[in-house]
Amino acid sequence: MPTTAPLKNPEADPRVKAVFDDIRATRKTDFINNLWIALAFDPTLLESTWAEVKRLMATPSLLDPLTKEMVYIAVSVTNACSYCVHSHTAAARARGMTAAQHAELLAIIALAGKTNQLANALQIPVDDVFIPKEAA
Amino acid sequence: MPTTAPLKNPEADPRVKAVFDDIRATRKTDFINNLWIALAFDPTLLESTWAEVKRLMATPSLLDPLTKEMVYIAVSVTNACSYCVHSHTAAARARGMTAAQHAELLAIIALAGKTNQLANALQIPVDDVFIPKEAA
Amino acid sequence: MPTTAPLKNPEADPRVKAVFDDIRATRKTDFINNLWIALAFDPTLLESTWAEVKRLMATPSLLDPLTKEMVYIAVSVTNACSYCVHSHTAAARARGMTAAQHAELLAIIALAGKTNQLANALQIPVDDVFIPKEAA
Amino acid sequence: MPTTAPLKNPEADPRVKAVFDDIRATRKTDFINNLWIALAFDPTLLESTWAEVKRLMATPSLLDPLTKEMVYIAVSVTNACSYCVHSHTAAARARGMTAAQHAELLAIIALAGKTNQLANALQIPVDDVFIPKEAA
Amino acid sequence: MPTTAPLKNPEADPRVKAVFDDIRATRKTDFINNLWIALAFDPTLLESTWAEVKRLMATPSLLDPLTKEMVYIAVSVTNACSYCVHSHTAAARARGMTAAQHAELLAIIALAGKTNQLANALQIPVDDVFIPKEAA
Amino acid sequence: MPTTAPLKNPEADPRVKAVFDDIRATRKTDFINNLWIALAFDPTLLESTWAEVKRLMATPSLLDPLTKEMVYIAVSVTNACSYCVHSHTAAARARGMTAAQHAELLAIIALAGKTNQLANALQIPVDDVFIPKEAA
Repeated sequence: MPTTAPLKNPEADPRVKAVFDDIRATRKTDFINNLWIALAFDPTLLESTWAEVKRLMATPSLLDPLTKEMVYIAVSVTNACSYCVHSHTAAARARGMTAAQHAELLAIIALAGKTNQLANALQIPVDDVFIPKEAA
Repeated sequence: MPTTAPLKNPEADPRVKAVFDDIRATRKTDFINNLWIALAFDPTLLESTWAEVKRLMATPSLLDPLTKEMVYIAVSVTNACSYCVHSHTAAARARGMTAAQHAELLAIIALAGKTNQLANALQIPVDDVFIPKEAA
Repeated sequence: MPTTAPLKNPEADPRVKAVFDDIRATRKTDFINNLWIALAFDPTLLESTWAEVKRLMATPSLLDPLTKEMVYIAVSVTNACSYCVHSHTAAARARGMTAAQHAELLAIIALAGKTNQLANALQIPVDDVFIPKEAA
Repeated sequence: MPTTAPLKNPEADPRVKAVFDDIRATRKTDFINNLWIALAFDPTLLESTWAEVKRLMATPSLLDPLTKEMVYIAVSVTNACSYCVHSHTAAARARGMTAAQHAELLAIIALAGKTNQLANALQIPVDDVFIPKEAA
Repeated sequence: MPTTAPLKNPEADPRVKAVFDDIRATRKTDFINNLWIALAFDPTLLESTWAEVKRLMATPSLLDPLTKEMVYIAVSVTNACSYCVHSHTAAARARGMTAAQHAELLAIIALAGKTNQLANALQIPVDDVFIPKEAA
Repeated sequence: MPTTAPLKNPEADPRVKAVFDDIRATRKTDFINNLWIALAFDPTLLESTWAEVKRLMATPSLLDPLTKEMVYIAVSVTNACSYCVHSHTAAARARGMTAAQHAELLAIIALAGKTNQLANALQIPVDDVFIPKEAA
């Protein structure tokens, strides 16, 4: 139940169609997931969001694709974003995440959630050695 | 400025000393960071927290050590835990994270923060294909 | 699926009826949305919550009604409050928010979510010029 | 470093003075903590905030004063509100919280932070038995 | 709609069966709620999570069982963990929480949410008197 | 105390210099605030972040500049981003926000924080009338 009215035919708008076509080509699939359909109510927002997702998540880079999805899951869980947790867990699985890796990821996300609470409850001062010195 | 009174000599308590000795042995350093010093006011809390951190973060496992630190940073940033962001950024750097990798990590954490807001603002329904089917 | 048992007839309680009547009169509608029905299990909580919402959101003030709804949406999205995102998006639309304004609002909420992550990840110190000087 | 300019003499305003006097009388102390001094830039906001804090936190009620402070700490830790964690930990201590109780409180707040992450990561559906049935 | 595939018969794994049997014995009920069923995909994660929940929540301790559930609710509400809010509200009710106590709990959680926002918006500096002095 | 080493002379890098020059020209000031200095460790991250901030916050658009800053403050407060609260409160003041408008903004942010907690604690189902119907 999105907060914007679903469009009958989002690809009637050529800018929307261009983005959807690029999503299909980039991902080598006909499937367009609901995030992009919901963003189609505003082509500018759709274009800029997809451009950034494509550049950072669908382009070879320093971090491997599975690590990037795991980081994405970690943020999404902490922000309680139900949609994002689902979509990026599916993406991580598509990039090879096994059930055992998933369980370890969850254990670390949960441990971080736990020690974040402890550190924020104790208001622990930052150790001097953690602060990087001026670079050249 | 922690919320508990700092102890004059935390290692006077043998349970605290045992944990601190294990931290030093596990990490091969004499340095004990402020989180453990702050937790020393309650040896039970100190012991159980260290046991879990040691098991998940300081023991070889499926995920490599740098990936685990990056996931930890992602959660800590999202929870606005200043201490944890500092300590785990330092830990990631100690495990080889370069400035370029750090920048890419931040870009992904920031993108996730952004699309989490979009998905939560639009209340996007989860696509059926994201939901795993019953296992054997 | 609320966490409290729904009441068969909340307006049987005269204090609940008085609040509901005031909601109807203030908003010039017969419709009572689920927040107020759920709060009716405790008339004191219902009364104090409605009094504050009425004073701040349904009374002419310095900020215009649409700006107030947009601020409310921004907080609700960030807190991942599904109900609040829905109810205040509907309220903003009722106060004239167009689809283009909605898209721009989402773009700003998303950008803030993004740069909040960057600033919290980098632990940026506050610039001196941002700190207001003592007032007369 | 607050975001509003500190006032030279906040009690020059009689509405501010009245609230500060009531804080001193209610708490039986001359000390006014920084929250109220910061809110003094707007007497209306100061009055309404103090009225609610006084009614809920400084008036005998169903929940005992220490339990209320512990709940307050739990929310403040989770929201990463540094000031609130400090002020309500001090208040809990003033209401008799021992170091051992504090440690147990932190352990529970940390465990909740942990299982919240697990439940949000797994997107666990709510069990039917948790949903209350319609009341009489 | 969990993010992991539901198992057809989780208790076919003897480690899962042992945990489920212990949950039933500890809680004196045949009912296993969905959290544990979802965690069963990884027996190690299931065992460690249950061990900690049992030790802190199902064992007599300094804080009474109802206070512990209220603290758990406070964290879960703030983290927007729908499942946890439901399960711990049900648990608090099973430990005797009345509707009037529930309403007061909600009023305090809501007030904390409100003053957390004020303190974070004003960036209030911590009062010196809130900072504990060095312990013996 | 940022988590990256401060650069001795960030503008030695021509890409950094180009962004800083554009910030100065756009804002008609010589002052570069710490966010951009911290981002300078990675010119790509700096460029993409500034491009988005410039496009959305420093370019005339549907929403007026002060409303945009208020929305930014609302998100930043809720995410407990100390730096962002400071920088955008200063920006809102530079765009004409009076103390009385600031107080009203805080009151609404605080009220939203409060009712978000109530709605999340009660798990209120979304009213049908809030859900937009299919668009043409």
